[in-house]
Amino acid sequence: MNNKTSWVDVHPDSHFTIYNFPFGIFSTPGSAKRVGSAIGDFVIDLSNLAEKGFFKKTNIPSEDFRESALNTYIGRGKSQTNQIRDRLIEIFQADYPNLDIQKNTLQEALIPMSECTMHMPVSVPNYTDFYSSKEHATNVGTMFRDPDNALLPNWLHLPVGYHGRASSIIPSGVPVHRPQGQVKAPDATQPTFGPTSRLDFELEMAFITSSNTNLGDHVTTSDAEDHIFGFVLFNDWSARDIQVWEYVPLGPFLAKNFASSISPWVVTLEALEPFRVKGPSQDPAVLPYLEYDGEKNFDIHLQVGIRPENSPEKIVCNSNFRYMYWNAAQQLAHHTVNGCNLQVGDMYASGTISGPTKDSYGSMLELAWKGTKPLKMSDGSERKFINDGDTVRITGFCKKNSLSLGFGEVSTKILPAK
Amino acid sequence: MNNKTSWVDVHPDSHFTIYNFPFGIFSTPGSAKRVGSAIGDFVIDLSNLAEKGFFKKTNIPSEDFRESALNTYIGRGKSQTNQIRDRLIEIFQADYPNLDIQKNTLQEALIPMSECTMHMPVSVPNYTDFYSSKEHATNVGTMFRDPDNALLPNWLHLPVGYHGRASSIIPSGVPVHRPQGQVKAPDATQPTFGPTSRLDFELEMAFITSSNTNLGDHVTTSDAEDHIFGFVLFNDWSARDIQVWEYVPLGPFLAKNFASSISPWVVTLEALEPFRVKGPSQDPAVLPYLEYDGEKNFDIHLQVGIRPENSPEKIVCNSNFRYMYWNAAQQLAHHTVNGCNLQVGDMYASGTISGPTKDSYGSMLELAWKGTKPLKMSDGSERKFINDGDTVRITGFCKKNSLSLGFGEVSTKILPAK
Repeated sequence: MNNKTSWVDVHPDSHFTIYNFPFGIFSTPGSAKRVGSAIGDFVIDLSNLAEKGFFKKTNIPSEDFRESALNTYIGRGKSQTNQIRDRLIEIFQADYPNLDIQKNTLQEALIPMSECTMHMPVSVPNYTDFYSSKEHATNVGTMFRDPDNALLPNWLHLPVGYHGRASSIIPSGVPVHRPQGQVKAPDATQPTFGPTSRLDFELEMAFITSSNTNLGDHVTTSDAEDHIFGFVLFNDWSARDIQVWEYVPLGPFLAKNFASSISPWVVTLEALEPFRVKGPSQDPAVLPYLEYDGEKNFDIHLQVGIRPENSPEKIVCNSNFRYMYWNAAQQLAHHTVNGCNLQVGDMYASGTISGPTKDSYGSMLELAWKGTKPLKMSDGSERKFINDGDTVRITGFCKKNSLSLGFGEVSTKILPAK
Repeated sequence: MNNKTSWVDVHPDSHFTIYNFPFGIFSTPGSAKRVGSAIGDFVIDLSNLAEKGFFKKTNIPSEDFRESALNTYIGRGKSQTNQIRDRLIEIFQADYPNLDIQKNTLQEALIPMSECTMHMPVSVPNYTDFYSSKEHATNVGTMFRDPDNALLPNWLHLPVGYHGRASSIIPSGVPVHRPQGQVKAPDATQPTFGPTSRLDFELEMAFITSSNTNLGDHVTTSDAEDHIFGFVLFNDWSARDIQVWEYVPLGPFLAKNFASSISPWVVTLEALEPFRVKGPSQDPAVLPYLEYDGEKNFDIHLQVGIRPENSPEKIVCNSNFRYMYWNAAQQLAHHTVNGCNLQVGDMYASGTISGPTKDSYGSMLELAWKGTKPLKMSDGSERKFINDGDTVRITGFCKKNSLSLGFGEVSTKILPAK
């Protein structure tokens, strides 16, 4: 695993190192969507490599790489898709034995990222959002309920989650109009209608599943990772004023379903192996179906920046995915313990990833503490929530000694209400 | 519209009269899934009629009728699919002018229902469950909160809804294992794990959408019905003990997503036209985006029966879809007012349809009033909730003078926990 290099020129800070090889859907002007990976500043056209026979030792047909979503490819199973990634590591390494005779052919599959448009990596059959950061749940409970009993009684016993809207998940780069909706001020007698005045981001990550399970089957914590293809960055846009009026008793709805934005490259679970870390200790002890062995958290540095129109970006949050109280294996074990079935391409978001320090909170609600501590932007303006014209950008990066890789970004500009 | 009859023998009590022509997906032993309609006791093989040129005046290609879900067909738009239904009414009427020469050919497309298996009519991209019966919300609020303030403050101002799980929606006839999960008794200090002891049905209906809208677009109450293909019966299975422990603050999750059962025939909005009725008056007045014109409720008699193993069925509920406080047009207008996009095949359930009388409540929770008034079954046993071995069957039927049609049924047997 150490000090691999690629024959492709890769900047030391690049997210797309020889240790990564994520999967995504891209297109170039005038051409159809297809499956790609990434190295340095290049998209690797996997449909091109497949047609040239570079993957002929796998059972994956080259048509899979001509599809406009990764679902068919991912659905082949991790034993198959891991072979593709291993092959990419092999042929893009500096010491690839056949490089002399194949370099020109391989280079034909490299397209500068600047010439590519990235799309939704998967068609999402089901989307669930968890609420698995203890710091976030504690902050919200402190603000809206009782600081001495900030966590609700169930929170330490199960990974609280709810179903979200799959249709409105969009890739990085697609702008979002400020949503309108029904709100009611605490002292008003009647609700009113209009654009949200409390538009917020939520810093999250999401994993994508690789298999269809049968209704009635339970995925255990020890099997769960066999069903996880990889992770993306996830911005769970939230309209706080709509949320507070609508969410009792059945949960968030229009406050969330106008858009959720994701990074377009799916970083595989296998790429993240070197970055495993121990999760927080869980007290009280969890029920047996939520017990797990091994390290199931990941050390992923996460940053959120806000760029006002025509101004430089200001980093407002430095967090880390390792803070999660409930890990992905526990989330899947809980989700399926009643027999709920998984589908290929499902997206399971973590919930807002807040850390222990005030600069690691993963939402404006927490960072500006319910509007009481506005954040200063690079142009001197202040933010309690997100303004029209602001671009919110989340990035994720892993580094351990000489190993590094990243998720790219999810960057979204907010446009005025339609 | 009056006194049409079919040349096919149709029993007066049949759900599949000349006024209906629903759409669904069926198969026969050894053959692939395909698109069908129904008349009397027969499935009409529409792929057969299409290949014989009976639909040649429409723009719908015959391949659509060979698909294993209605999505492609429905996605052609209602102006197209209505032509198919109009053509079915024409060719199956007793006075069809070409009957003499075409009867044998038409009869070749009729397959006895007893020889057919019905499947999920659509692949469901998104599923939302509303909570739109005032009587149901009042009953629940009375039981669990304050009888004097049974409705929460937002309830009369917006159609409360939440996202559900699409993957676990199954057709009538597929048995459901009693789900397991985490529960906590009110006086217990710790939660426990095991099969639910409060398994309940919820009598609902659901509509299916026929178009993909763009993210950011709003569907108004006057346009909403242009996006509704038709309705099915919907049983929103619920585990009440799991629900009460998990649902705060983000709503129902594992208490619902182990299964939702639907009737396999989609009855079109056009078939339901004669059964339009005025909805309840809405007071306080709704915000302008929720105002609507015309009659947007439907007079559909609904029944729920419970059949213990080896015993006759007992009807436990007689309700009606006309009781809904919020109609489908208002539900869609609300759902999209923030720009949330619709997809072809989406399912939007009504929420439990309870009426004003005690025998019209749409769940065991209400019928047995939180377990305080058990229901007597045909074999003398009592039910507070649903037992293993019970079959729960929902039917729906419309009748107005000589016009009648029905939804068939959604019937589901409960098996012991796995």
